[in-house]
Amino acid sequence: MQPSREGLAVVLCSGGLDSCVTAALAAHVHELALLHATYGQRTAARERRAFEEIADHYRVPAERRRVLDLRFLGALGGSALTDESLAVPEDEPGEGVPITYVPFRNAHLLAAAVSWAEVLGAASVWIGAVEEDSSGYPDCRQSFLEAFELAVRRGTTMGESFRIQAPLVHQKKSMIVRTGLGLGAPLDRTWSCYQAEERACGVCESCRLRLRGFLDAGVADPLPYEERRP
Amino acid sequence: MQPSREGLAVVLCSGGLDSCVTAALAAHVHELALLHATYGQRTAARERRAFEEIADHYRVPAERRRVLDLRFLGALGGSALTDESLAVPEDEPGEGVPITYVPFRNAHLLAAAVSWAEVLGAASVWIGAVEEDSSGYPDCRQSFLEAFELAVRRGTTMGESFRIQAPLVHQKKSMIVRTGLGLGAPLDRTWSCYQAEERACGVCESCRLRLRGFLDAGVADPLPYEERRP
Repeated sequence: MQPSREGLAVVLCSGGLDSCVTAALAAHVHELALLHATYGQRTAARERRAFEEIADHYRVPAERRRVLDLRFLGALGGSALTDESLAVPEDEPGEGVPITYVPFRNAHLLAAAVSWAEVLGAASVWIGAVEEDSSGYPDCRQSFLEAFELAVRRGTTMGESFRIQAPLVHQKKSMIVRTGLGLGAPLDRTWSCYQAEERACGVCESCRLRLRGFLDAGVADPLPYEERRP
Repeated sequence: MQPSREGLAVVLCSGGLDSCVTAALAAHVHELALLHATYGQRTAARERRAFEEIADHYRVPAERRRVLDLRFLGALGGSALTDESLAVPEDEPGEGVPITYVPFRNAHLLAAAVSWAEVLGAASVWIGAVEEDSSGYPDCRQSFLEAFELAVRRGTTMGESFRIQAPLVHQKKSMIVRTGLGLGAPLDRTWSCYQAEERACGVCESCRLRLRGFLDAGVADPLPYEERRP
């Protein structure tokens, strides 16, 4: 079945928990076009596998899956996620912006999704950004997403009908887990760990946020872990 | 001499007339960090040479020159600038958005410049966008640039002091030529043609805009041309 052009949405999908649940929400109202990016992050291969398995789950055909090479972002430096000389912290996120912040990363991801949406004729871009209960990255804030949406309306041919959808932006991690389970999202296919690809490390800030989310939701995380500390 | 961090500006430099004059304006008040992108455009090699020669002129050291690979933009399709199956028009730009528009290109360029600025500690990004007397691309409008600047202030750690500078946005092409000549900018090192790399074609929309600018300024364009029609 050919999707109607109005019915198509571009969903940014890292392969993590939040973007998987975002895809599940988008799949309820749209045909999906799934966009993944590699930008020199340590666990790129494992995230790519998670992306493909989520795309398989939602039966997204090959022509509506794209993997973009944004490795220039890693080359610009400044983040422990892409720079092997900087250690990934093994603590809960504290105050301020953590060292795993990749400068303005979500702007690059959104711009790619918007360019593809403009070519495809899709009217919205979905992103699993989370402002509350998250890592404190400035490019996950709703106020940033609103300004970026305005820039898209003014800076493309798509105009006022274009929307950036960030349905999880004010959800707590435990609510995201419950939303995903309620929608039958393939949470067992996702990957969140910042530093390991076989068994999740259990101690990086991303693992800690994820494990706390499952714990608070009262549900077992289906992923294999080296350690579980929270 | 080490530049002061406050004194550093990231300037987007395609190698064309507008970005060269923008670099000349920025060089009056800042140390320069010059950023060039290749995105699968037809004349990438010639533009790269122009970029390096402009950087040489302003004595920008190697560590403050970056060439980014944004070829995924061309892979997303939709523009005659990057898609060999679409012809580059040989007319003056008419009404509407021309087929040489690369969807949301300036958002990608600005995002890259912002990420680099955040890593370098530069407080502004300069872009040679021209709204008046230009090709009619929506991502060259001042209203787009203002929305993007707001997104940067909200979506990075740089905050309210960050500026996007687009000093040519309301200048006519002839004024840009005069400004460049007045500042001693190396206009003979620039490249504007969309489809040729040896001698400029003289007939694509970019050549036509450039030639009309020199004509209206009453100055000879120093570049070699195949044809001069305007």
